[in-house]
Amino acid sequence: IAGCSQLVLKPQTTAEVSQVLRYCYERNLAVNPQGGNTGLVGGSVPVFDEIILSTALMNQVISFDKVSGILVCQAGCVLERLNEFVEEQGFIMPLDLGAKGSCHIGGNVATNAGGLRLLRYGSLRGTVLGLEVVLADGSALDCLSSLRKDNTGYDLKQLFIGSEGTLGVITAVSILCPQRPKAVNVAFLGCQSFDKVLETFTTCRAMLGEILSAYEFMDEKCMELVERHLKLSSPVADSPFYVLIETSGSNSTHDEEKLNNFLEQAMASGLVTDGTVATDDKKIKASHLRERITEALTHEGYVYKYDISLPVAKLYDLVTDVRARLGHSAKNVVGYGHLGDGNLHLNITAESYSHSLLDAIEPFVYEWTAGCSGSISAEHGLGFKKKQFIQYSKPRQAVLLMQQFKAMLDPKGILNPYKTLPSAP
Amino acid sequence: IAGCSQLVLKPQTTAEVSQVLRYCYERNLAVNPQGGNTGLVGGSVPVFDEIILSTALMNQVISFDKVSGILVCQAGCVLERLNEFVEEQGFIMPLDLGAKGSCHIGGNVATNAGGLRLLRYGSLRGTVLGLEVVLADGSALDCLSSLRKDNTGYDLKQLFIGSEGTLGVITAVSILCPQRPKAVNVAFLGCQSFDKVLETFTTCRAMLGEILSAYEFMDEKCMELVERHLKLSSPVADSPFYVLIETSGSNSTHDEEKLNNFLEQAMASGLVTDGTVATDDKKIKASHLRERITEALTHEGYVYKYDISLPVAKLYDLVTDVRARLGHSAKNVVGYGHLGDGNLHLNITAESYSHSLLDAIEPFVYEWTAGCSGSISAEHGLGFKKKQFIQYSKPRQAVLLMQQFKAMLDPKGILNPYKTLPSAP
Repeated sequence: IAGCSQLVLKPQTTAEVSQVLRYCYERNLAVNPQGGNTGLVGGSVPVFDEIILSTALMNQVISFDKVSGILVCQAGCVLERLNEFVEEQGFIMPLDLGAKGSCHIGGNVATNAGGLRLLRYGSLRGTVLGLEVVLADGSALDCLSSLRKDNTGYDLKQLFIGSEGTLGVITAVSILCPQRPKAVNVAFLGCQSFDKVLETFTTCRAMLGEILSAYEFMDEKCMELVERHLKLSSPVADSPFYVLIETSGSNSTHDEEKLNNFLEQAMASGLVTDGTVATDDKKIKASHLRERITEALTHEGYVYKYDISLPVAKLYDLVTDVRARLGHSAKNVVGYGHLGDGNLHLNITAESYSHSLLDAIEPFVYEWTAGCSGSISAEHGLGFKKKQFIQYSKPRQAVLLMQQFKAMLDPKGILNPYKTLPSAP
Repeated sequence: IAGCSQLVLKPQTTAEVSQVLRYCYERNLAVNPQGGNTGLVGGSVPVFDEIILSTALMNQVISFDKVSGILVCQAGCVLERLNEFVEEQGFIMPLDLGAKGSCHIGGNVATNAGGLRLLRYGSLRGTVLGLEVVLADGSALDCLSSLRKDNTGYDLKQLFIGSEGTLGVITAVSILCPQRPKAVNVAFLGCQSFDKVLETFTTCRAMLGEILSAYEFMDEKCMELVERHLKLSSPVADSPFYVLIETSGSNSTHDEEKLNNFLEQAMASGLVTDGTVATDDKKIKASHLRERITEALTHEGYVYKYDISLPVAKLYDLVTDVRARLGHSAKNVVGYGHLGDGNLHLNITAESYSHSLLDAIEPFVYEWTAGCSGSISAEHGLGFKKKQFIQYSKPRQAVLLMQQFKAMLDPKGILNPYKTLPSAP
């Protein structure tokens, strides 16, 4: 997607990025940094005639340390390629997401991408060890450290993580890769209520401990749609809620024993009414169910998508309340997501887009979320589409300070304008 | 320690901290925020007549969520008290350090404290979920989120983590606590060379995987001093290097099996010449050896202390080079530290302080570290004592940007002056 942009530049080096920005800065030309262009909030798409600065040709690995697992690479490396590269050395990337086949690591960092491995390996704020960034005026800021610990002054790189290209262009990344797990197992469970889903989470975390690597949930509506549109079938008996548990560990015998013990206890105590520990074939099937919900939803018509963080205990109340509020005006109101991270994906479908339905959803969903001190964008960012809603998750004082940072680092406002922050009042 | 300060203020609430700073800001009075005053670089000690703003009476837990493990508390809570509190609920604090009995969580965050659990649970940049900070002018900045994922605008709290009280006063902290491990085991090993220490690390990480929670090393000089001054004895045969491994897991049978398998293989392959998996009694002894090195060193006279981050492969070369350089002018040159994090504690002892010996050590150690792109302060910060050495670990452009942030957030320079950053040129 290139918006109305008439120019796409593809530099190969940091020096070339510097040259481009120096040129644009002197002439007040707006620049839209772009990685794999897979974002969901319009952060990587020009709004008017911004020049696209693509990292597509900046795809070189700079170094990899096999003892520490620290990878240093250019910003345009595709996440999946990097994962293949470090897997050969016995490591994995600390993040994984659906768009891995085309998203760039620089874009992942610029948007602070979450994804499937966050529960286990933490966010990019901990795993990114260093960044090289070109600032608006073209000067390069070298914070490309490869150290796990460095307390010498303020941690400038953090400001660029999640700033969606509005404060600088990330040109290189240093990131800590965890070891590749030797064994991965999956369990698929049915629960009779969301309270049981929560209790199962607490039990599972206690019994699986350090090997738990994902705890995902979906409601029966999701299952219904996946079954209807994709002809997949549930591996467990019909239930109001389903849970997908993944373990990753260094010893398959130990991991299976832990998982089986957990499942036995969860079923004996009535937390779980049906469950299966997946063999290789079933494993693929069970994780497909979860991964293909988005695809199943598109078969239903128009989809209103929300990516919300909430205190886990209240995670499903939002779905229930929205369902009650919308009644028959929506076709489906479904909830699924990364329960272990307190991250709900709320999706509402209708035959076609309707402004009145949107008005019934927004700002209701944002107000509801703000009422629980939640976040209106857990992992997708604000980009162009959600920047005007920032006040639902951040106080005025914080937004003002962000605007001051923006003004300091990009005084002419040439970097990814109209994104992330609301226009200054 | 109160320096030459004539006034110590102990507010109990954020509103009181606001009042104090508003008053001081209007009158250009310098303020020195102080937690438990356990820092090693003078960050918490007034240089001249700064007013001490102590968090000692801000010691209330605000909330704890048993499902998510998220703790919210005031900045003046003592780390050890917090750990006891969350342990009762089945969790632990994600950090642990020697000063835990008196350091405050606010001070830990302000200095980005590292410590013993970093290898396993990551740094505070990942585990701190939210902060409440009072800015120089007395306005309160509420970023006290309790969410694991929140991508709505820039992550302002990161700027205050590790800023040593120079950008704002942290008044409350929201932090993610990991589950309390059910089993903790310790192994103590002897290795014939530093290369074997590194190879043992790689093997151990592969075989222990997710349960590895510490990998510490010490050289034979450390052992000699601990034995001589503290009458402790080594649990393994004399070796040039010693390694302390700790595992934390959810199943003691599994953990012991993994640890024994590893030890068998490490000894069979000659990586390790002697080793013992600690029983409860020996466990205390083995970890004492490592923890009491600092104490043993003080018996030797004056101690020059360095807290250095380096690429792991070069970690011990610095010790060897310093030892060769100083020859008989130093009594002892010893190295130990958190190898798993690439963190070396280099200590040099002499009968008494000597300026000429200091000149032989500095800037040699800093230049050597800079030559390997290391950090001259891994986990202690810069404070008052090391601020003039920042350029060894940060480029000029980064220091200038830090000074801009300082000028923006604290235009009158009243917050912890003379600390962290070198004076503007």
